[in-house]
Amino acid sequence: MRQKIGILGATGMVGQRFIQLLEHHPYFEVAWLAASDKSSGKKYGDAVKWKLDTALPEKIANMTISPAKPEGAPKVIFAALDTDIARELEPLFADAGCAVISNSSAFRMHEDVPLVIPEVNADHLPILEEQASRKKNGGYIVTNPNCSAIGLVMVLKPLVDRFGIDSIFVSTMQAISGAGYPGVPSMDILGNVVPFIKNEEEKMQAETLRLLGSRDGKIVRPLDARMTAHCNRVPVEDGHTESVSIKLTRPATREQILEAWAEFKPLAGRDLPMAPAQPIEFLSQDDRPQPRVDKNRGRGMAASVGRLRPCTLLDWKFTVLSHNTIRGAAGAAILNAELLVSLGKLEPAAVTV
Amino acid sequence: MRQKIGILGATGMVGQRFIQLLEHHPYFEVAWLAASDKSSGKKYGDAVKWKLDTALPEKIANMTISPAKPEGAPKVIFAALDTDIARELEPLFADAGCAVISNSSAFRMHEDVPLVIPEVNADHLPILEEQASRKKNGGYIVTNPNCSAIGLVMVLKPLVDRFGIDSIFVSTMQAISGAGYPGVPSMDILGNVVPFIKNEEEKMQAETLRLLGSRDGKIVRPLDARMTAHCNRVPVEDGHTESVSIKLTRPATREQILEAWAEFKPLAGRDLPMAPAQPIEFLSQDDRPQPRVDKNRGRGMAASVGRLRPCTLLDWKFTVLSHNTIRGAAGAAILNAELLVSLGKLEPAAVTV
Amino acid sequence: MRQKIGILGATGMVGQRFIQLLEHHPYFEVAWLAASDKSSGKKYGDAVKWKLDTALPEKIANMTISPAKPEGAPKVIFAALDTDIARELEPLFADAGCAVISNSSAFRMHEDVPLVIPEVNADHLPILEEQASRKKNGGYIVTNPNCSAIGLVMVLKPLVDRFGIDSIFVSTMQAISGAGYPGVPSMDILGNVVPFIKNEEEKMQAETLRLLGSRDGKIVRPLDARMTAHCNRVPVEDGHTESVSIKLTRPATREQILEAWAEFKPLAGRDLPMAPAQPIEFLSQDDRPQPRVDKNRGRGMAASVGRLRPCTLLDWKFTVLSHNTIRGAAGAAILNAELLVSLGKLEPAAVTV
Amino acid sequence: MRQKIGILGATGMVGQRFIQLLEHHPYFEVAWLAASDKSSGKKYGDAVKWKLDTALPEKIANMTISPAKPEGAPKVIFAALDTDIARELEPLFADAGCAVISNSSAFRMHEDVPLVIPEVNADHLPILEEQASRKKNGGYIVTNPNCSAIGLVMVLKPLVDRFGIDSIFVSTMQAISGAGYPGVPSMDILGNVVPFIKNEEEKMQAETLRLLGSRDGKIVRPLDARMTAHCNRVPVEDGHTESVSIKLTRPATREQILEAWAEFKPLAGRDLPMAPAQPIEFLSQDDRPQPRVDKNRGRGMAASVGRLRPCTLLDWKFTVLSHNTIRGAAGAAILNAELLVSLGKLEPAAVTV
Repeated sequence: MRQKIGILGATGMVGQRFIQLLEHHPYFEVAWLAASDKSSGKKYGDAVKWKLDTALPEKIANMTISPAKPEGAPKVIFAALDTDIARELEPLFADAGCAVISNSSAFRMHEDVPLVIPEVNADHLPILEEQASRKKNGGYIVTNPNCSAIGLVMVLKPLVDRFGIDSIFVSTMQAISGAGYPGVPSMDILGNVVPFIKNEEEKMQAETLRLLGSRDGKIVRPLDARMTAHCNRVPVEDGHTESVSIKLTRPATREQILEAWAEFKPLAGRDLPMAPAQPIEFLSQDDRPQPRVDKNRGRGMAASVGRLRPCTLLDWKFTVLSHNTIRGAAGAAILNAELLVSLGKLEPAAVTV
Repeated sequence: MRQKIGILGATGMVGQRFIQLLEHHPYFEVAWLAASDKSSGKKYGDAVKWKLDTALPEKIANMTISPAKPEGAPKVIFAALDTDIARELEPLFADAGCAVISNSSAFRMHEDVPLVIPEVNADHLPILEEQASRKKNGGYIVTNPNCSAIGLVMVLKPLVDRFGIDSIFVSTMQAISGAGYPGVPSMDILGNVVPFIKNEEEKMQAETLRLLGSRDGKIVRPLDARMTAHCNRVPVEDGHTESVSIKLTRPATREQILEAWAEFKPLAGRDLPMAPAQPIEFLSQDDRPQPRVDKNRGRGMAASVGRLRPCTLLDWKFTVLSHNTIRGAAGAAILNAELLVSLGKLEPAAVTV
Repeated sequence: MRQKIGILGATGMVGQRFIQLLEHHPYFEVAWLAASDKSSGKKYGDAVKWKLDTALPEKIANMTISPAKPEGAPKVIFAALDTDIARELEPLFADAGCAVISNSSAFRMHEDVPLVIPEVNADHLPILEEQASRKKNGGYIVTNPNCSAIGLVMVLKPLVDRFGIDSIFVSTMQAISGAGYPGVPSMDILGNVVPFIKNEEEKMQAETLRLLGSRDGKIVRPLDARMTAHCNRVPVEDGHTESVSIKLTRPATREQILEAWAEFKPLAGRDLPMAPAQPIEFLSQDDRPQPRVDKNRGRGMAASVGRLRPCTLLDWKFTVLSHNTIRGAAGAAILNAELLVSLGKLEPAAVTV
Repeated sequence: MRQKIGILGATGMVGQRFIQLLEHHPYFEVAWLAASDKSSGKKYGDAVKWKLDTALPEKIANMTISPAKPEGAPKVIFAALDTDIARELEPLFADAGCAVISNSSAFRMHEDVPLVIPEVNADHLPILEEQASRKKNGGYIVTNPNCSAIGLVMVLKPLVDRFGIDSIFVSTMQAISGAGYPGVPSMDILGNVVPFIKNEEEKMQAETLRLLGSRDGKIVRPLDARMTAHCNRVPVEDGHTESVSIKLTRPATREQILEAWAEFKPLAGRDLPMAPAQPIEFLSQDDRPQPRVDKNRGRGMAASVGRLRPCTLLDWKFTVLSHNTIRGAAGAAILNAELLVSLGKLEPAAVTV
């Protein structure tokens, strides 16, 4: 008996990834799809412009799209909405008693909303108990980070734990799928670089420090480090590549860093379906990771890292890659839900206040 | 009466740019072309795979390619050779009394070889008098920097002069034409990023500090600053884009920085044909500069800069763009030659030891 | 004294090309710009997303965008409107006594609207005298063909004249700029082919036969030939490439075909500024024409053709290339206007009914 | 007990696909790898530049590359060699008693070498009994067609069977992976079309007619139809897209054609692991098939077809797509081998002369 779940924003790029990744999922069954008003009432197969290179499941294609309202929705909702719409809709579902597993940025920085990567800061989850809806009827919102932050944070986490991090410099080369559909016009990006993604640098900086921070009772204190991000769009379909330099608090050798990455398996034993066996994959070749060939490592859920070398300005530099619509969006949300299942906390009904 | 010049490495990507840029040049006339042994003796039009989007000039197409030897070559040589070949051939031409205006990295860091950007460090040129060939018969080698360093250095120079620079962070997104032809296989770069260009980071770091350094008699002292470079290849045809953060020695406001860039016209009055009227063009739009639309500013000779904003780690951050095969290679060498003409120093024959 | 002209649809891709191509035009001066209601009243430089790789002229950037109404507009209008809007607006301007030089498809197939390529069918122009507006106050509409038809028709015209054409097969690979801006989403075309462009095959087939047809008094009879078109979109910025097979009415040798192309100079002597000296450029290399390197031949106004070889199904096959936003749009309209000037017919005021 | 097989040309693009597709194959086990002399003796993982987006299997990475000689090779060889090398090496292996399942063009048109697509012309296989090596010791060569022919032929086969085909027009847009590695330089194809692939049109035309032909005793008579091919390279990673027009011998309605495609399941019942359940997938959307999203249909083994519509020159036109390195190369060879297993003919040892 799989848990019935709903998807808010089911026709968008991230919504499609939810459907793809949940097709044979052992815990969850897609039972409800909602999208914008103009799609509501249509068959999903008629309303969606399916952009993935696996087939749209027949069963999903035949489902009718529901209005984006809590009435009739399942108790567990994966939300893949644009920020403005998320800000309006997600609280409606939480207030109605739903567990809202959100990929949106709308509430990521709210004091009582957990912003979580299961491998990194599962211990931040308890702050959700402070949400008003939670107290009322068990409903809550949990979020995963921005697609540009997630791979970086995974790679930094074991270094924070073992050596401390003082400063972080990152310059990104982000894939077009991160902008959704229709997203980036081809006239803007074919054979080009766009050195700007609206609000991305601010989100990446704030979320990274929050994710690496620690919970102090009912609140999260961000990591006390300095960070700067440059965010660029490049003509790549999937996979965000990032050039990173860091200054550590305590010195570490190359071997110690590689060891920290290799041994980073915080979910070992939990046996979560989406969790990669090796969350951080270090690639020893000179010219890796590369998005075209490495984005699917760990079925799109691993962060790849390579080119570890001394930095002539900070301490170390390296390149990070992660799949922006799997690890950086739909897969991240599903893993959050799996973790909540594993903790016995997913279903709002189970909550007793 | 234009000065007859020769081109070493005439069939390569940079050699082609030399031909294109010199087609109607007021000072120089292409009178001699040399390439590898397998092309020697052929008509240029038959030997070259012309990759530029302007027509190969008829006159050049009909010229016969000479062997790459000083015998019969003009006294002024533009050299666009691979490093290993440059290391062998350029000294032969200098020893034979030629002015070798080189785009190669072979001798850029040699103590007595000027590495010059006319707008930046024309005052480094006198070190060429120390070259053995110069003393013997007037021949010499002058070099221009790596395509990734040149735009950056132009943009940094007025800041060094007015405020001093303590630290430089740069992450590049470099065009494929920088790797020559056949260069980067399409299987490696279409829809991809390659986070590695052999020796590029080392060259970029060392050359930047040398270019921004100062001449002390017969030698150049590099700028006393710390710098780190991340070099990446992206699927762009021409134009290197760079994300830059800097720490200044003395504080500067946004207005002061913009003023420093706007007023940077060190060649004003010299009236050199290749020199851009505005060497540094600041673009005020959020999402610029971009290689596809901005690379040709100043006929490919200007450095574009945009997105000036505070850096949360160092002081300021911004994006730099320059055309890698014009400003970053052939155009840079031609401008070096124009400067030498303007100083009355180009022709080796004029030297009396 | 240059003729003052206006541009309808000035902020779009074709509108931008009009501005670029008219910057130093000897006959015409851009004196009026109109665009959609949301741009009206703004400075052009603020309203446009300039996508070309030459700078937006300062003077144009400072012009204020007018409402798209005939009041206050010059008597000569270059129109670069979407079909639906063109259908509504172009007659308003013609009725108000303007010469409307249109790039839109709205009226191309109307019985009394000339669809003209100056090198091909200048003799179709007199049908414009049948237009109601012409009879009323001199105003009229003249159109140029679809960007996919124009290069093909130029290459076919001398063959029709010398040998007759019975059948035409064409399969296109069209650039993204043909779809305007924002146009094709990058998610649809990066590393992809889209084998469909709405209405393009129908337009290409009908227009080609009309352009190659002959005027019979007040009407144009299409060429009596059979034609089929397959239209595809590919990830190329500018330049439509077309694979063509034809069956001739009378046999021709390879030499005769090459001669027909080489000798095709129907505008020789007219000295029109946009007209290419060699309208059809044959390229003898195996692998040409290619959009990236050949689109700018004849300053973007020549049709390139290559790979002439026997067809095992029809008679001959070859590849055609032309620049879709210069020869295929803005440049085509400007050349139409130049031809009208040369015929003394451009200015509606000159007409006496 | 899986059959041990060897791979000739194991480090190339097609060799890598063999390894990827055979990783979990129920019939075959990769037991021997050979490549060029410079790789011989190295570990495969050190010698290969792995370009696929799935991980190189650990076991294969550790295998040592053998010299490309029959001594010590298994009795079943998958060959992915360049034509010139195939011409020399494949007969050596056949003469040594090996079954050579070849992807090369070297012997495809030889009178006694079967050129086979299992769904199309399995009945051509018996001509292999005429091979000298076969008679001597059981060794033989079987080939699969060119990557551009295979999807087309699959789509045409049921139409030939039901309606007959008189004429075929095809214009291809082929992916870069078809040229191997390093293959097409990025400077040639980024944002470009190359309207030429050496010998491709000749191979595509001859192979298509041979594949659709019929065996007459010991020889194959090609289909009596006329065909012309235009072959183009486009910036797509995998998947050849083809615009096709055909003239049928007997008229067919749209419904009859769709039915012929839907019912085409000639391998049904054989249960071959690589065989797609639906060899021809018809896509009803306007703008499909597209290489990026449809190439993996039937795990890369199906031919996709769409846009069926009347042709104004021949009878019908449509678009065909197939994966060029799976269905068009490695997967095709593996399916040939599976068919031979199913027929009890794969292992040369089984042959009694």
